[in-house]
Amino acid sequence: MSSQAGNLVRSSGALLATLRDRRPIVQCVTNFVSMDLVANALHALGASPAMSSAPEEADEFAARAHGVVCNMGTLSRDRVESLQAVAAAAGRHRKPWVLDPVGVGATRFRGETAAGLLRLRPAAIRGNASEVMALARLSGVSAEAAEPRGVDAAHDPEAARNPAMALARAYACIVLTTGTVDLVTDGTRVVGIANGAPVMARVTAMGCALSGAVGAFLAITNDPFAACVAASAVFGVAGELAASPGGGPGTFRVNFLDRLFDLTTQTLVGHAKLAD
Amino acid sequence: MSSQAGNLVRSSGALLATLRDRRPIVQCVTNFVSMDLVANALHALGASPAMSSAPEEADEFAARAHGVVCNMGTLSRDRVESLQAVAAAAGRHRKPWVLDPVGVGATRFRGETAAGLLRLRPAAIRGNASEVMALARLSGVSAEAAEPRGVDAAHDPEAARNPAMALARAYACIVLTTGTVDLVTDGTRVVGIANGAPVMARVTAMGCALSGAVGAFLAITNDPFAACVAASAVFGVAGELAASPGGGPGTFRVNFLDRLFDLTTQTLVGHAKLAD
Amino acid sequence: MSSQAGNLVRSSGALLATLRDRRPIVQCVTNFVSMDLVANALHALGASPAMSSAPEEADEFAARAHGVVCNMGTLSRDRVESLQAVAAAAGRHRKPWVLDPVGVGATRFRGETAAGLLRLRPAAIRGNASEVMALARLSGVSAEAAEPRGVDAAHDPEAARNPAMALARAYACIVLTTGTVDLVTDGTRVVGIANGAPVMARVTAMGCALSGAVGAFLAITNDPFAACVAASAVFGVAGELAASPGGGPGTFRVNFLDRLFDLTTQTLVGHAKLAD
Repeated sequence: MSSQAGNLVRSSGALLATLRDRRPIVQCVTNFVSMDLVANALHALGASPAMSSAPEEADEFAARAHGVVCNMGTLSRDRVESLQAVAAAAGRHRKPWVLDPVGVGATRFRGETAAGLLRLRPAAIRGNASEVMALARLSGVSAEAAEPRGVDAAHDPEAARNPAMALARAYACIVLTTGTVDLVTDGTRVVGIANGAPVMARVTAMGCALSGAVGAFLAITNDPFAACVAASAVFGVAGELAASPGGGPGTFRVNFLDRLFDLTTQTLVGHAKLAD
Repeated sequence: MSSQAGNLVRSSGALLATLRDRRPIVQCVTNFVSMDLVANALHALGASPAMSSAPEEADEFAARAHGVVCNMGTLSRDRVESLQAVAAAAGRHRKPWVLDPVGVGATRFRGETAAGLLRLRPAAIRGNASEVMALARLSGVSAEAAEPRGVDAAHDPEAARNPAMALARAYACIVLTTGTVDLVTDGTRVVGIANGAPVMARVTAMGCALSGAVGAFLAITNDPFAACVAASAVFGVAGELAASPGGGPGTFRVNFLDRLFDLTTQTLVGHAKLAD
Repeated sequence: MSSQAGNLVRSSGALLATLRDRRPIVQCVTNFVSMDLVANALHALGASPAMSSAPEEADEFAARAHGVVCNMGTLSRDRVESLQAVAAAAGRHRKPWVLDPVGVGATRFRGETAAGLLRLRPAAIRGNASEVMALARLSGVSAEAAEPRGVDAAHDPEAARNPAMALARAYACIVLTTGTVDLVTDGTRVVGIANGAPVMARVTAMGCALSGAVGAFLAITNDPFAACVAASAVFGVAGELAASPGGGPGTFRVNFLDRLFDLTTQTLVGHAKLAD
């Protein structure tokens, strides 16, 4: 392991300990499919989810929250209004927020919504390879075409490496592209996290829950690159430990919350597989 | 077992194998209580759920989806608009869709919504006996009264046999009425599927998840009758295998997703109890 | 145990038996994070949830429901309209309803919504200490300040004892304040229920599910004080039995639904820890 990778593994362990100590409030505008898992994953991790989406209270929640999550799933006109209000409030209150551009590339509506949110400057973007490629393309920073497949990824994160880097540079943010190997980039550096288990792709809202975790880690550090790596490593290691041989997605989801809850910094540091 | 029943058992096995091979995209407008279970059941089954409801993207999702689900639970004005837009788009793109008329008969609002959706020609209808009887009655195809009890069934599917047949003939669709024994009819034939377990009635959204599975099977065959039988048999057999003696509804739901995931065509064919 | 406490333990057992016998219909306007758990907990308990929020059908559902739940989480303009319509319909149809003022005190929007709902006269209020203190303060019945922390409680129920009593007297309702020890008051009497387990605070929507249970118990008795005590005792005892040493929140939630389902009146009576 390179010295950069070794440092990031150690910082992930330290950030996990800090997160549990501080119990950051993470405001989540997340889609209706994922609300239960996102809130439970944040609780299990040691954060305090606040599932508020109303524009009427965006400022008051942003003032109190330590990190914010804007997830574009189950989009609607009302939801667009909520996402924009909450992201704008996060900006005014200088709270870091993560954009999860669910299904971007699949429809014009999602593309316009994502473009509007990008202009509000997320600290991080978390998406699958298809979403990251689509987002880079519609932002004009990459010409590579992405074939969306509903909201599931049709591409490997490696295919999104250059678009992700271009996106990170253009918007001065961190891009976390998830898949078999997760990639985190700030536009210059790229780190891969090779944890996780195949069954994770058969449980709904796992990506949304990871975006929630990114919001929690952003809340406790000024280093968004380290926050994205930590969130990816924590989810990947907990996922590996939760996946039993021959186990199904029902059992996995239960185990996963248990493993998020009892993951020690030692286990995290011992199992995280990072590579430059 | 009659030769028709035997053929349907074999076709159910073949359809399950096809579904896993093709991984159809199933667009779901489903109620907010059921979103988590519907999406997870579709993932476990091997399909790819797309939980999009926005009229703004109905055409783009319908173009990409292979099957569509319109579920009337947690109804609202916005939801009516979504259901109508998505069902209409499914029609324009010639994608088969299933109507789940949750709670129809309980209120005028649901009755009007169901009537409007029926005119858009679902390939299949999936409801409990009370809902099917209410739907037949409000469509003017049956005079039998149904006493709704909230959204839970107050009747046995057998009581809905004639209304279900009348409904299927009037709208040239398949009607799947669920209960202790599920009944599938095209208005002429009626097949009963006698699988399942009592605990399934104590887990929320199991009917909605079955409607999701109907959408997945409709997506991969031109025979909607066989699709409804396969969905019912798969759910019933997985339910039987998931129900442990003395087990509660929490454990059941976890096991059920595991059994949907690892159900083999041999197990399905060996356990399905069909009768004309 | 005092004779009052002993009587309440016995009445809790009797109410649990009655609930399972009558299977009351409980209409729930509850937040989107909690819908799955609220509905599943009601099913497990033996009630019949009806998750309808539409103002268009508020009167028809209120006519049929036996108890009603109004939960302010994931608030929005539409949700305010739903809550007011459903609470008003419950009043017209003389059905008891419980208010769960999620996050009140955190924002002006929630304060105004809660104040409007209080005027519609809930039979019971269920909240954490921070919410009960905030509600008492904004109602002008108590001057004690509460520091909200997102939607999680920042206070012990004991700190809310006087505000809860003042609130109960001012609105002639029962107030159930939950925490390490739950407190039930009608403004004169106060009973503490000391069951439960720490892991319950790490599972989302457990408080919302308890509010659902309050709605179910209100539905089957004219004694709302006994209903609140029974709901708290049932949740606390089921929670204790569900919490395994070293177990995580994923396993807990599964076990909890199983224990709600198979909890006997004897176990309830034997384990409930009540004190005046």
